Amino acid sequence: MAEVIRAPRGTTLTCKSWLTEAAMRMLMNNLDPEVARDPANLIVYGGKGKAARNWESFYKIVEVLKELEDDETLIVQSGKPVAVWKTHEWAPRVLIANSNLVPKWATWEYFNELEARGLIMYGQMTAGSWIYIGTQGILQGTYETFYAVAKKYFGGTLKGKLVLTAGLGEMGGAQPLAVTMNDGVVIAVEVDKRMIDRRLNTGYLDTWTDSLDEAIRMAKEAMKEGKPLSIGLLANAADVHPELVRRGIIPDVVTDQTAAHDPLNGYVPAGISFDEALKLRKENPQKYLEMVYDSVVKHVSAILEMKKQGAKVFEYGNNIRRLAQDHGVKDAFDIPGYMPEYIRDLFCEGKGPFRWAALSGNPEDIYKTDQKVIELFGEDEHLRKWIEMAQKKVKWQGLPARICWLGQGQRAEMGLAMNEMVKKGELEAPIVIGRDHHDTGSVASPYRETEAMKDGSDAIADWPILNAMLNVASGATWVSFHHGGGVGIGYSLHAGVVIVADGTDLSKKKLERVLTNDVGMGVVRHADAGYEIAINTAKKHGIRMPMLDK
Amino acid sequence: MAEVIRAPRGTTLTCKSWLTEAAMRMLMNNLDPEVARDPANLIVYGGKGKAARNWESFYKIVEVLKELEDDETLIVQSGKPVAVWKTHEWAPRVLIANSNLVPKWATWEYFNELEARGLIMYGQMTAGSWIYIGTQGILQGTYETFYAVAKKYFGGTLKGKLVLTAGLGEMGGAQPLAVTMNDGVVIAVEVDKRMIDRRLNTGYLDTWTDSLDEAIRMAKEAMKEGKPLSIGLLANAADVHPELVRRGIIPDVVTDQTAAHDPLNGYVPAGISFDEALKLRKENPQKYLEMVYDSVVKHVSAILEMKKQGAKVFEYGNNIRRLAQDHGVKDAFDIPGYMPEYIRDLFCEGKGPFRWAALSGNPEDIYKTDQKVIELFGEDEHLRKWIEMAQKKVKWQGLPARICWLGQGQRAEMGLAMNEMVKKGELEAPIVIGRDHHDTGSVASPYRETEAMKDGSDAIADWPILNAMLNVASGATWVSFHHGGGVGIGYSLHAGVVIVADGTDLSKKKLERVLTNDVGMGVVRHADAGYEIAINTAKKHGIRMPMLDK
Ligand SMILES: NC(=O)c1ccc[n+]([C@@H]2O[C@H](COP(=O)([O-])OP(=O)(O)OC[C@H]3O[C@@H](n4cnc5c(N)ncnc54)[C@H](O)[C@@H]3O)[C@@H](O)[C@H]2O)c1
Ligand SMILES: NC(=O)c1ccc[n+]([C@@H]2O[C@H](COP(=O)([O-])OP(=O)(O)OC[C@H]3O[C@@H](n4cnc5c(N)ncnc54)[C@H](O)[C@@H]3O)[C@@H](O)[C@H]2O)c1
Repeated sequence: MAEVIRAPRGTTLTCKSWLTEAAMRMLMNNLDPEVARDPANLIVYGGKGKAARNWESFYKIVEVLKELEDDETLIVQSGKPVAVWKTHEWAPRVLIANSNLVPKWATWEYFNELEARGLIMYGQMTAGSWIYIGTQGILQGTYETFYAVAKKYFGGTLKGKLVLTAGLGEMGGAQPLAVTMNDGVVIAVEVDKRMIDRRLNTGYLDTWTDSLDEAIRMAKEAMKEGKPLSIGLLANAADVHPELVRRGIIPDVVTDQTAAHDPLNGYVPAGISFDEALKLRKENPQKYLEMVYDSVVKHVSAILEMKKQGAKVFEYGNNIRRLAQDHGVKDAFDIPGYMPEYIRDLFCEGKGPFRWAALSGNPEDIYKTDQKVIELFGEDEHLRKWIEMAQKKVKWQGLPARICWLGQGQRAEMGLAMNEMVKKGELEAPIVIGRDHHDTGSVASPYRETEAMKDGSDAIADWPILNAMLNVASGATWVSFHHGGGVGIGYSLHAGVVIVADGTDLSKKKLERVLTNDVGMGVVRHADAGYEIAINTAKKHGIRMPMLDK
Repeated sequence: MAEVIRAPRGTTLTCKSWLTEAAMRMLMNNLDPEVARDPANLIVYGGKGKAARNWESFYKIVEVLKELEDDETLIVQSGKPVAVWKTHEWAPRVLIANSNLVPKWATWEYFNELEARGLIMYGQMTAGSWIYIGTQGILQGTYETFYAVAKKYFGGTLKGKLVLTAGLGEMGGAQPLAVTMNDGVVIAVEVDKRMIDRRLNTGYLDTWTDSLDEAIRMAKEAMKEGKPLSIGLLANAADVHPELVRRGIIPDVVTDQTAAHDPLNGYVPAGISFDEALKLRKENPQKYLEMVYDSVVKHVSAILEMKKQGAKVFEYGNNIRRLAQDHGVKDAFDIPGYMPEYIRDLFCEGKGPFRWAALSGNPEDIYKTDQKVIELFGEDEHLRKWIEMAQKKVKWQGLPARICWLGQGQRAEMGLAMNEMVKKGELEAPIVIGRDHHDTGSVASPYRETEAMKDGSDAIADWPILNAMLNVASGATWVSFHHGGGVGIGYSLHAGVVIVADGTDLSKKKLERVLTNDVGMGVVRHADAGYEIAINTAKKHGIRMPMLDK
């Protein structure tokens, strides 16, 4: 069954409309070997985030989509197509729910049992909702985070600033480029040479060394000249960080993307060579873990010391604070999380990971929409720069796609502009528009997106459910509701939405509503929690919040 | 703020359409003193199930509904109106989410904390979704359950059969009438004389005695004559049940509705007078509980013995099996739950608690729809009898309303018929149609509605979410999604739906879809779990389940 899946390209419809064609192509695109991590097992990304329950389900979904009418809706339960209903033309063509469990049973153990019996599927975020577009997403998110740091503390640029981090893995590998795109200098400590090589090959990393002295020298020079530079340092963070403190070298910004959330498989201890560490991990996991704890304590203590001496430090969602605190670093949580520290302000403006793909498969369609972004929002230099850099650095994976963070008002504007382009024939085929579930109004996740909400409403999950229902009510093409994405089973609930710009007048109306209401629910969620920025955004955009009426 | 709330009656619109008028009247009706348990605190029923977060929210919801346009949607988060969005005329006018929490935080303790801070509201089932209609619902549900017993074991009637139960409280008080409506004889043991008196006064109970001999004599006589009779026996079940076993008197059916789920406040121990028990409960709860455990063991052991000797026994959701097993009755779970034993088969046909209310406030409107039920489904004697008995025995509470269990196909038929009646002017005003969340496709609740599913999918909650989204996509007037109803925070997720029959052609289309799809998702959920009845129902009604295609 391990057939290679690749979405059809071009303007010939396989399905009865571009709406169902989009669902089919995006489902297939999620399983394109250029996109998916393990397509043979239907795994797209993020642990075991899947696009369909099994191959039988996959083929049946495709079959149904090919026949689905404009007033019918396909129901997908954890990746299995369970029913087709007559609805109406404003209704979504597909409704999806993945991985949802009654709270008392919401554990990995129980989930795995049900999964083994073929009853449920882990959807992660955009895997099970058919709008993953490859690694561009993480690059853009990291770029935005570093930009938020720059804006908050350094006047909007990291020029002449030094960022220290560790981990150049799957996600962390985006860090060097994300820093240099913000004009900064970065030393990224990584123990695994292969990871450094990979990033050098894709142009995400500029240079490397295994000498701390050399790294410092290069960094200082670049900082002095105000030139962006990314340096991979082959070493262990638990050695490098304390040594920098000893030498009195305090970076401007410090974060981390070692996979500390999984101490056994994701963190490599110091005091032992990399190869020996890999051996020890297998042969004596207990011993290995003890060394990890020891290293993490040194690593995090050094970060805390850098913070005391003025560095802007933050945790990037790898749970390293928890690990350090559990092993004796009492004040580990003095390191703030990246969400409340940097992303929340953006979410309050409705800003989040807006993305789209060209159903034609033609990169020109994306370049033209890139141009449209610059035309509409080009006064935002940061945004313009992203588009330019993305064109240079991002390689297509599957259908050509673009991501950028847009806020309330902007998303609708951009969606309508793309619909107009399709209508006028400026693009070869319709555009499919979606977003990550890691967005302003779509997720309740107290260890990440909703950590430390102002009013303490971190765990209240009415919001993502309302978001999903409102998207269904606004004209979305498909809507999904998931459990456990990002932080695992039990810890999050979140919704996805996708809408097609096919150039029709009906789509115009739908785009206007979906792209206003979806993100608007995020603004409302934050305004309701008392964030001033969100309240102002709501006012500015005329969002009606009855309880704020005079 | 404890103003008395009562929905407007008659045909004058306060809002801009009958759809929004219905939402407003039903919200108000939920707080009508005839309907609500504690209207001053906005509590409708079921513990602290509320209709709105607070009075400020209540008045604001009403204010918004009065102005809401036909293409706008109000968003209610745990009883608070948080936003109004532009949608379209097929979209619901209100979307509601109540009490939802990220699973790891889904405990009463945490919920209560958030509630105390004013951030969340407990919606129970129909309280927070504005379609509670008073105690008629419990009477009808109990009637259906006893009928299901009769159908499964006694050829469809309890004529000449003896039912033994205990508890004539808030819910349990419906039992005597529900049995006699099925032509059976019932001895209902109750320790509290006031409860017996209440049921005698409302005509739910025929007679009473405090003598076991007398109760047996009356029961035997009625059984012999084939006459329905309900007998309240003022005594303790822990005394009566073992004594019946000793005397070799084995009832045909045994169940229980003492409030054993709450041993301290809901169960009264034997071996002590009722008044002394109430004193002991306050003064020495520990001692009281020990006596309760002792009594429950005797009570449940007797039920098990009756089962061995041929009685059909079942637990009615009061958790008495758990309590007994925890205190030594190893085989307490040999007593089946009422859901898998009796209700599941009904759910497989899509049968569940369909209900409607007359927005006019005119009882004649309900009598006319009663007539329509008989006209359409009168060949179902059981259903006809319910309508006739309900007309005699059920007192209106708030807006006149009716409930009856209808299945796949029937609900849509009835909905369309009511719309036609409104259109033709046969009814004074539109009808509002809804259902309990305790229904075939709308709930995941492993200790009740989804206990012991055939494929082990009890805890999978994709289904109620899909149900909610599909109802939004099908033209419902308002849709709600709740957590914790029936069995408490952490243990259930469920959806509600309401739709107005206002006589228009658009409503006709919406009714057709909503009343087909909503219940159809229940049939699909059960068919997917492998129930033959559900698979046949799906086939019979042409429900498209792609994975069942040849
Ligand atoms: N938004 C978010 O919250 C978010 C997003 C992406 C990733 N993350 C988290 O970031 C972490 C990294 O993710 P990933 O997918 O890149 O993981 P990964 O396992 O692919 O990469 C981790 C890298 O860290 C290196 N490493 C481990 N210990 C080290 C040490 N002591 N010194 C130097 N290098 C070391 C490893 O060799 C590896 O290359 C994870 O914990 C992930 O959960 C969070
Ligand atoms: N569908 C369902 O699952 C469902 C529906 C309704 C009720 N229930 C359950 O049924 C139970 C009853 O509900 P309720 O609202 O009527 O409770 P309630 O507290 O109003 O009534 C319980 C009654 O039992 C009597 N009683 C207690 N101990 C007794 C004893 N040993 N002998 C005789 N009488 C005794 C009390 O005096 C009281 O009148 C609850 O546990 C409830 O959760 C379940």
